[in-house]
Amino acid sequence: MDGQLKRITVLGGGTGTYTALLGLKKHPVDLSAIVSIADNGGSTGLLRDELGVLPPGDLRQCLVALSSADDVVRRLFTFRFPEGGLRGQNCGNLILSALEIIYGDRSEAIRHAHRLLNVRGRVIPASVHATNLCARLEDGTVVDGEHSIDEPRTDRAPIRSVFLSPSVRANRDALSAIAESDLVVLGPGDLYTSIIPVLLVKGIRQALAETDAKIVFVLNLAWKAGQTDDFTAKRFVHVVQDHVKPAALDAVIVNSEPIPSELFERYLAAGEPVVKDDFANESFRIIRCGLLADGDVQHDPSDDVKRSLLRHDPDKLANAIVSAF
Amino acid sequence: MDGQLKRITVLGGGTGTYTALLGLKKHPVDLSAIVSIADNGGSTGLLRDELGVLPPGDLRQCLVALSSADDVVRRLFTFRFPEGGLRGQNCGNLILSALEIIYGDRSEAIRHAHRLLNVRGRVIPASVHATNLCARLEDGTVVDGEHSIDEPRTDRAPIRSVFLSPSVRANRDALSAIAESDLVVLGPGDLYTSIIPVLLVKGIRQALAETDAKIVFVLNLAWKAGQTDDFTAKRFVHVVQDHVKPAALDAVIVNSEPIPSELFERYLAAGEPVVKDDFANESFRIIRCGLLADGDVQHDPSDDVKRSLLRHDPDKLANAIVSAF
Repeated sequence: MDGQLKRITVLGGGTGTYTALLGLKKHPVDLSAIVSIADNGGSTGLLRDELGVLPPGDLRQCLVALSSADDVVRRLFTFRFPEGGLRGQNCGNLILSALEIIYGDRSEAIRHAHRLLNVRGRVIPASVHATNLCARLEDGTVVDGEHSIDEPRTDRAPIRSVFLSPSVRANRDALSAIAESDLVVLGPGDLYTSIIPVLLVKGIRQALAETDAKIVFVLNLAWKAGQTDDFTAKRFVHVVQDHVKPAALDAVIVNSEPIPSELFERYLAAGEPVVKDDFANESFRIIRCGLLADGDVQHDPSDDVKRSLLRHDPDKLANAIVSAF
Repeated sequence: MDGQLKRITVLGGGTGTYTALLGLKKHPVDLSAIVSIADNGGSTGLLRDELGVLPPGDLRQCLVALSSADDVVRRLFTFRFPEGGLRGQNCGNLILSALEIIYGDRSEAIRHAHRLLNVRGRVIPASVHATNLCARLEDGTVVDGEHSIDEPRTDRAPIRSVFLSPSVRANRDALSAIAESDLVVLGPGDLYTSIIPVLLVKGIRQALAETDAKIVFVLNLAWKAGQTDDFTAKRFVHVVQDHVKPAALDAVIVNSEPIPSELFERYLAAGEPVVKDDFANESFRIIRCGLLADGDVQHDPSDDVKRSLLRHDPDKLANAIVSAF
């Protein structure tokens, strides 16, 4: 039965990947997620620094997205302590870190986490070694750490390139997931801090070149201040192409639904305007469809505040992705 | 089927209660544990202070003792973080605290913990309100907090009495467990910091007076420095009787196995000599049998160090307890 299912592998980490997985898990497909191991912010950063564990945050979000466990376990894995010395610590991150120390083996710890959360599919760290993301800016400055790069700052030069320090080799499970996929999905997510960190792991690019899978990129809805300012659709794709070559994108998924003006203005005012669709005749298939989430969204259940945000709707996004087979 | 099982309720908390439950769960009995809510030491103390949760440590130990969950869950619940800002924090305590905050209802949180750990039986906090244990010493000094009283100090006056501040009312589930029991077991455990704190909760003593259950006290093997120095068997029983009256002890379980001389000397040197069995003709049944654990024991799995300790053997102890029906 499993062998007959189409296989989809999502690359990334963060809210965008969470959204894609949430939608895709309702489809009869065999799902894998390959997640970044360069996160060093917040609760995750503290745990990797203090305990030497793989950054748990992106792993945890993807595990929760694919979890079929009961409500109690999923709520535990998304809970953040509200006060005291544990303030801001995510309980799921603590549990993943504990498993890693208990079993002394990252792959075994992640296997146990899959069972605890009754995960449908596989969540695979891009490498079993943590690493740091660095950005070289146009003025030559180097910004060290995913968290610093991720800060929405407008007072620094644009990013010229990003690299991993140290360079790390891909997890074998990640390579075989790509090799066996029918579809590999990049994003949605922050270009330089979620998608490209996975593409930079040694071996991933070659696996993308060798797989028979179609490679699909999901275009973001808005700029990310300090990362993709002034990026049009073409420019996003150009940067992604540059990081997957010699593989090439087979399709790009673009929202074609009009952005409500209130949201449009709010994002513009925050320095993160909506991405302009300037595609003309391109070498890849363009899948344009309505992808917007309606009204209030609260993507990560650990985020208590419901906000009206410009976000992909999990179901619409998943439908667009499976249309790319 | 359940209605035909004999019902045993163990009162206490700490390693002694853990040991009794570990042994009793192999018997075809319906088990409950009523645990102290006055603990304020270590990881537990930090969590109750900072998050306002019920002290989780004793609850957690009893839940683990009665757990039939797989190894992963039980190891998670006993794991202590070895370093960093989380050093010494027990992962099970963190999970129990998280459940309490998530559900905002202590009884519901504990129910969920039972399911997570697949607990056979019931672990019941003596009260749904945390409180503090205070000791009045013979010289009039008052020592505040279970943790301070529990310190094995020999440089202070003996304990005259202990009390809870504030006074708290018993959990209804605790009262009905006692009412429906065939046997109520006190200890083994630290007299003033594990057993009596449960007996001091308002309503418990009356429930003991009204129940048809036999009341059995398990005598400790050794003194606890700063708590029960110079206590013989008779004196232990005298203090317990004083805290259960108008109920009366039906039986006392006493070890009759010779203590290995090496252990005898070590405990003597540490100021915690073996308790002398000075029972003669008493008003209660005396159950004397061999109760010692052999060789290295490691009671709480979160304690990494295997030590040769003077401890009750779970199976021998359970056999002695069920012989009291």
